[in-house]
Amino acid sequence: MESAIGVLVSQFKAYAGSDGSSDTLSRDEFHRLVTSELPTFVKNAADPAAIDQLMSSLDKNNDGELNFMEFWQLIGHLASKHGGFGQ
Amino acid sequence: MESAIGVLVSQFKAYAGSDGSSDTLSRDEFHRLVTSELPTFVKNAADPAAIDQLMSSLDKNNDGELNFMEFWQLIGHLASKHGGFGQ
Repeated sequence: MESAIGVLVSQFKAYAGSDGSSDTLSRDEFHRLVTSELPTFVKNAADPAAIDQLMSSLDKNNDGELNFMEFWQLIGHLASKHGGFGQ
Repeated sequence: MESAIGVLVSQFKAYAGSDGSSDTLSRDEFHRLVTSELPTFVKNAADPAAIDQLMSSLDKNNDGELNFMEFWQLIGHLASKHGGFGQ
C-alpha cells in the first residue's frame, strides 16, 4: 500500500513540475495528467471542456491551480466509484 | 496511476471484508491494515493506543467504522507528508 501511495505522489509531482509551481497542477498540467493517467476513470477524459469543468469543481480556493489535497479528493472519488462504494 | 488507485481500493476491500460490514474498516481491521500496510508511513504504527487515537480522529460520523472516504483522508495526509507538500 505504501508503494502505491508513493506512485501517486511521484506521478503528481512529475506532472506538477512541468511548468510554474512544482507543487501544484496548472490547467495544462491537469489536462495532460487526466488524458495520460486517468483515461478510463475520468468520464469524458478526451473532452477538454469536461476537464476544465472538473478542474473548476476541484479548485476550492479558486487560484487556477490544483494542490495535492485538491487532487487527492478527485482520485478519492474516482477510487470510491471504481470500488463500488457508492459515494 | 489507475493501477495504483486500483491497488489501494483492492487492499482496502481485502481488510474491510474480513469481518462485519465488507465496505468499512472495524477497529480490528484498521489495526491490521495499519500494522501490515502502513508500517513506515504511520507514526507509532506498532502502538495500539496510537492507532485507536488515529481511528477516532478519522471516524467523522463516530460510528466506530471507517468508510472508504474516511480512510482516503488518512492516506491523503500520509501521501502529502511523504511528498513533502507540507499540509
